[in-house]
This record gives sequence, structure tokens and C-alpha cells, in this order.
Amino acid sequence: MIAEIIAVGSELVNGEKLDTNSQWLSRALGKLGVSVHFHTTLGDDLAENVAAFQVAKDRANLVIVTGGLGPTQDDLTREALAEATGEPLAQDEESLKAIVDFFERRGRVMTDRNRVQAMLPFGSEPLPNRVGTAPGIWMRHGDCTFACLPGVPYEMRLMFEEQVDPRLRALGAGSSVILHRVIPLFGKGEAEIESMALDLTARGRDPEVGITAHDATISFRVSTSGATEAEALARLEPTLAIIRERFGDLVLGDSESVDVPEAAVNELARTHKTLATAESCTGGLIAHQLTKIAGVSEQYLGGVVSYANHAKVAWLGVPDSLIAKHGAVSPEVAEAMAIGARTAVGADIGLSVTGVAGPGGGTAEKPVGLVYIGLADAQGASTRRLSLGAEQPRHVIQSRSAKHALNWVRLHLLKGETGR
Amino acid sequence: MIAEIIAVGSELVNGEKLDTNSQWLSRALGKLGVSVHFHTTLGDDLAENVAAFQVAKDRANLVIVTGGLGPTQDDLTREALAEATGEPLAQDEESLKAIVDFFERRGRVMTDRNRVQAMLPFGSEPLPNRVGTAPGIWMRHGDCTFACLPGVPYEMRLMFEEQVDPRLRALGAGSSVILHRVIPLFGKGEAEIESMALDLTARGRDPEVGITAHDATISFRVSTSGATEAEALARLEPTLAIIRERFGDLVLGDSESVDVPEAAVNELARTHKTLATAESCTGGLIAHQLTKIAGVSEQYLGGVVSYANHAKVAWLGVPDSLIAKHGAVSPEVAEAMAIGARTAVGADIGLSVTGVAGPGGGTAEKPVGLVYIGLADAQGASTRRLSLGAEQPRHVIQSRSAKHALNWVRLHLLKGETGR
Repeated sequence: MIAEIIAVGSELVNGEKLDTNSQWLSRALGKLGVSVHFHTTLGDDLAENVAAFQVAKDRANLVIVTGGLGPTQDDLTREALAEATGEPLAQDEESLKAIVDFFERRGRVMTDRNRVQAMLPFGSEPLPNRVGTAPGIWMRHGDCTFACLPGVPYEMRLMFEEQVDPRLRALGAGSSVILHRVIPLFGKGEAEIESMALDLTARGRDPEVGITAHDATISFRVSTSGATEAEALARLEPTLAIIRERFGDLVLGDSESVDVPEAAVNELARTHKTLATAESCTGGLIAHQLTKIAGVSEQYLGGVVSYANHAKVAWLGVPDSLIAKHGAVSPEVAEAMAIGARTAVGADIGLSVTGVAGPGGGTAEKPVGLVYIGLADAQGASTRRLSLGAEQPRHVIQSRSAKHALNWVRLHLLKGETGR
Repeated sequence: MIAEIIAVGSELVNGEKLDTNSQWLSRALGKLGVSVHFHTTLGDDLAENVAAFQVAKDRANLVIVTGGLGPTQDDLTREALAEATGEPLAQDEESLKAIVDFFERRGRVMTDRNRVQAMLPFGSEPLPNRVGTAPGIWMRHGDCTFACLPGVPYEMRLMFEEQVDPRLRALGAGSSVILHRVIPLFGKGEAEIESMALDLTARGRDPEVGITAHDATISFRVSTSGATEAEALARLEPTLAIIRERFGDLVLGDSESVDVPEAAVNELARTHKTLATAESCTGGLIAHQLTKIAGVSEQYLGGVVSYANHAKVAWLGVPDSLIAKHGAVSPEVAEAMAIGARTAVGADIGLSVTGVAGPGGGTAEKPVGLVYIGLADAQGASTRRLSLGAEQPRHVIQSRSAKHALNWVRLHLLKGETGR
């Protein structure tokens, strides 16, 4: 089955909004073994919509349209589908009743334009929408099946899962499953990791292995298909095992939802340790990344954002004289910050970051991108120096500093004392 | 001039990666007065590429292709363009020399596949690439002009600006300018703001006014065109003035780069005040949002992420007994946190947040979504209660809490004492 996804909306094609529905649908269809060959995005113009639907009908046998089902004059999908298939629009009584009910339940006034939402091409089937007014449309025409869904991502996804997915399975989709697994790594560059994996990324290999990089986290994406999910998974497993073995402690976890913060929290949980933080140049980013994780209060006690020097003194007990002697960006201050954070709240581990995030504030001796991270535990404290590059923008220096710092916590716990 | 943008890459059409080039190009073309009517995304299949190029040629007179110019066998844009236009591929000597030079400068070995990158359709013009190996292609064919650019966003953007933009201007683009201005608001819902702006959003009005909502920030987007940027701007101004007047202190600023944190920092800078924060449920998000802003150390001294109760005691001087009596999520503790943060570092304003971000931790009395924010200054302290809805996900509760808290700082400074 070859699929095309069409996103309708002038705000998408003129660049005002980014279409993310098509990517989501490609992934959802991939899981059903349906291969998407085309995405088309176009504006609210009837003739262009009709023509695009005809092009799609000729090159694909499943066409999923998002958007253009609302009540306004800009919403042309019903009309365009009728013209493209040569069927007249007819009122669907059940959909009309659903729309009337929707407004009654909410005590809102229904307009005549809402009535238009129940006009569907003759021979099509309405797809009930339980969270909005617009019904979707399911229509088979010759070799091709159209599924029209609302553009609001939440409504679209729900309707795909509840209405389109079962209908596609009834047409035979899902009989083979395409499965992906992602293994994220941190600690080496993409080129180096790639050079260690040339046998895995070779073309034509099954499972197929791809490498992607996002914000210094390098991910292996391993894909294969099988008659069932279990079969596909069994085919994936040996490759996943090779990657885990070969890349050892670079491996953060076993899904794309794990990045360095999640991996660090997993290690804290495994070893029953608690963490406190002291952040200068990362300005709360580490705390924010940790507290995005639900239930993290077992592992993370809190932290200080010591942007001003006297915040380091007041909250972390860093001596004024130490800052005066070595400067706020120094291994000495990083160490004192880590110890101060740990001690103040009685955490097992104190983690600190101090550096020059830029764009201003750099000197010849301490350029933008110079960052010290400190780690303190019951055995003592130590620091590391990062040189992240003066040409990097502020947010990259902040993000890399946070990743390196939390990755140190992860490795420290993973290796015991040798991780220091 | 009607434009189509084609993004080539199997990783885009199968949903692995999100295409952002097309949106960027739509915006860049819009500034030149070129209207984009279609985006097409497709995989690395020669026949499908040839057919899509032909469809584009018939419905648009400018086709911009991104991707498919690399050295591998997957890179089919050169071949597809040659087939679609009926011209043979020929070696371009200048491009070949540029590729050879590129490898020499870097001391890297050039492969035969790199040589293929200098094969261009006969009659086309290479677009020099000074940051990568692949030259782009500029080709006029009948009524239609093709511009083929690399898929790497950085290379694509640079080449568009240096090579494509001037060529489009030479074809007459840019003789009228489409201009947008964005005014972001915070403090009322989208529906309420929309109902106050029906005269502005009426269809056919010039300048055109649209409303978009992102994470509770509602933005007016005002668009018009003119022969020059100055003329378009003069046409925009009266509408911008009406919006500023009508929405008063809901207005955060005058560009889409301003959201609540930037607006709060602007007010702090205007009034020469400093801020310290104490965050429980927002977990450093406020600190992170503030310290993303370069140069914010003049306004923001630092803060505490007091996730554990004893962090509130140790760093903010909140009495143990107060937490025991009222609970950590209470107006009393919010007030004490704000005062504690302000006092510890000698800031003009202390801002605090304590609440239940969920998904766990809610009770009948203190449900998920209950949040107290506190504000302290030299005159005293006060608190506000937010009910953000138990059904909201954690990250939404965190984000809304941070916005309301920083917006309170903004309004407090804007209105003087009456803002409390």
C-alpha cells in the first residue's frame, strides 16, 4: 500500500505554522507496514486542492488529508474531495445530529456554517469525531482510499487511532509490522561513533541501522519488519545487543525518550542516591531538566542558581575570598559550589557548573565556552574543565554543559569511585 | 510568481525526521513577495522524483528543491531534474574544480562519488557552495525556474541568501514586500481576545490580522504588502497602534521573540530592579527561562530550586513549623519563600512558586494544578492562587505557573504598587 499525506492550510504553506501532522501520520502508518511516499502541503484554494487530490489518487492508494474540515469558507476539503471524485455533496443525517448534539451539550449556538460540516461526498462514510464538531470522511474511490481528518493535532491523532487504524487493518494493513528501536549514546562525536559502526550501518543490512545526532546525543535507530511485533522484535534484538556491548557506558538507555537527564536519574534511583545542584552559567537548566521528570523528588532534593557572586556566598557558602582570588569561573569555585550544595541539603552528591556562556563576558584567559563542573560526595570533590568553543551560541554552551555535568553523575554512579 | 517547494529524503517522508526547510523557505520567499502554493516531500526514488518535478513544473513557475545533492547513490536530484527537463547530464568543470579544492584544503580523500556532484543538467547553472561539497543548481526551463539546494539547513539557508535571493530579485521578485509584525499578549484566553478583535480579524481587511496561540501566549500577526519595506510598515502601523491601545497591559512587546520572560526582564531593566526566585513545582524553569536571555545578570541575581522541604528551610529560611502547619503548598509557605529568596541575595523582588505539578501528589484538598505564587518587595509580600486543572500534564502546569509568576512581576513593575 503506497500512501500520500496531504496537509491543507494556507498558514502551513506560507510558513506561518509548521506542519507536524504529516510526520506523525508517517510514523503511525509505518507501524502498520504502510509506506508513505509523498507529503503534500497546500493552501485554501479549491482548484489547487482538487488537482492535488487527483495527483494523489493517481500515485497512491491511500490518501490521508488533514485540515480543511472546519465550518468556515476556508474549509474546502469536503468540496475538493467531491469534485476530485466526481461525486455530489449530500447531507449526512447522522453527522448533522452529532453536530447539533455537540452544540446542545455545551449550551452554545450552532451556526449555519456548522451545518455545512455534515455535507459529505456521496458514497463516503463519516468518521465520528467525539472531541470536536467536524466529522472526518472515509471514502473509497477506484483503487484509492481517502481518509480526511481535522487539522487540530489532538483531534487528528485521536480520530486516526480510533477510526482510521481499524479500517486500515480491515483492508489488510498491519499484517506486517515495521518496528524501530532507538539507542541513545552520549560522550563521543557522531563521526567517531559512525566509524565504530560501519558494519552496522552498511546498506542493505537487515535490521537497518541509522545514526542521528541531536544536541550532542547520538542515537542509533534500528529498524526491521516482521509478521508480528514479536517477530520483528526478535529480529531487532541481536543488533541491539551488539550496539549495547560495543558502546558500553556511552549507552544512555533503550528508548528515544531517554536522554542524559533521564539516564542520570535512573542511575541515582538504582543506587539509592540523592543529588543537589549549584548552577551558574547553566542558570537552572539542569534543575529544570531533572524536575521535568515525574517522581524525581526521590532523587533530586533541589539546587541553587547562583548567578550573582553573592548568591554563591549566601546559598553555597563559597568564601568571598575564594571568588576574589580565583574568579567565579575556576575549578576552586566549582568545587566549593558542589560541596556547598551537597552540604546545605544533605544530598549524597553535589553537582556544580560555572562557566562563561557568552555571548559577552569572555576574556583571553577565560574565553566564552570555558566551563568547570564539580562533583562532590562523601569521599571528597573533584572538577572537570570543558572547552565548548567560543563560537558556540549561548544556548548550546548551556545545553552541553548541563549534559556533560549530568553525564558525569551517571558515569560516577555506574563505575563507583573510578568514575571520578 | 507561484512557487512550490520540494523536500527530498526518505527520512523525511517516513517520519523519521521533520522537514523544517520548507517552512523556512516559505517565509524567506514571502519576504520577496513570492507566494508559495505547494510543499511536496518525497523519498529517494528516481521515478517518483521525476514525476513530482513534472507536476511542480506545470503548476508553479518557481520550484525550489532541497536535498538529494549529496554524493551517495540515494542522491537523485541531479538525475531527476535532467530527466524531468529532458536535458542530459554534463560535467561542469568549475564545479568539479571547486569540489577538488574543497577536499584538498581539508586534506581529505575525494571519492569518485564526489565527482558525480559536478554532473549537472545541460543548460543549468551551478550555484557555488562555500560550506559543503555539493553545488546547487539553477535552471530555467520554459516558464519555470528550478533552484536545487542542499538539504542541510545551514548550507541551504546560506546558499539561498547568497545565490538564490539575488537571482530571484533579478527576475523581478522583491519588487513588492510582504511584511508581518507580531504582537504577543498574555493574561486572557484566545476566545476572549478573539471576541475583542472581530473588527480586526474580519476577512478582506488590509492589513490582515490573524490570531495564534502558543502555550497560553496569544499573538496577533499583522500582515500587509507594499512597494518598499517602509511603505508596508507605514501601512501596518495604525493597526499595530489599535492593538496596543485596546489590549493595554496584556501586550508583552512588539515582536514574536518576546514572551513573558523577556517582557518581565524588560520591565526589570526599565525600572532598575533586581529579582531572585524560589521555585518548587516549576523546578528551575523560571531560572532557566531568565538565564536564556543574554546579559540578564544585571536583573537576575539567582534562585533556589527547593524541591525537598529541607531545601526550603536551609536555603530560604522557611520555618519547619510553617511547613508542618500549612503544608509546602500553601500561601504561607509561598510568601515565606519569596521573602527568603529576596533577603538571601538582597534582591529588590523575590518571586516564589509552590504547587502540585502532578501527575502524582494531588489530594482532594490540594489537587494537581493547585499552585501558589508569592511576590515580595521592600513594602511586603503577597500571594496568588492558581488553579491550572488536574487534567493538565505536568509540563503544562510547570509552564503556566512560570508564565503567571513572571507576568505578575511584569505587571507589578508596570503598575507600581497597584500591581500587587
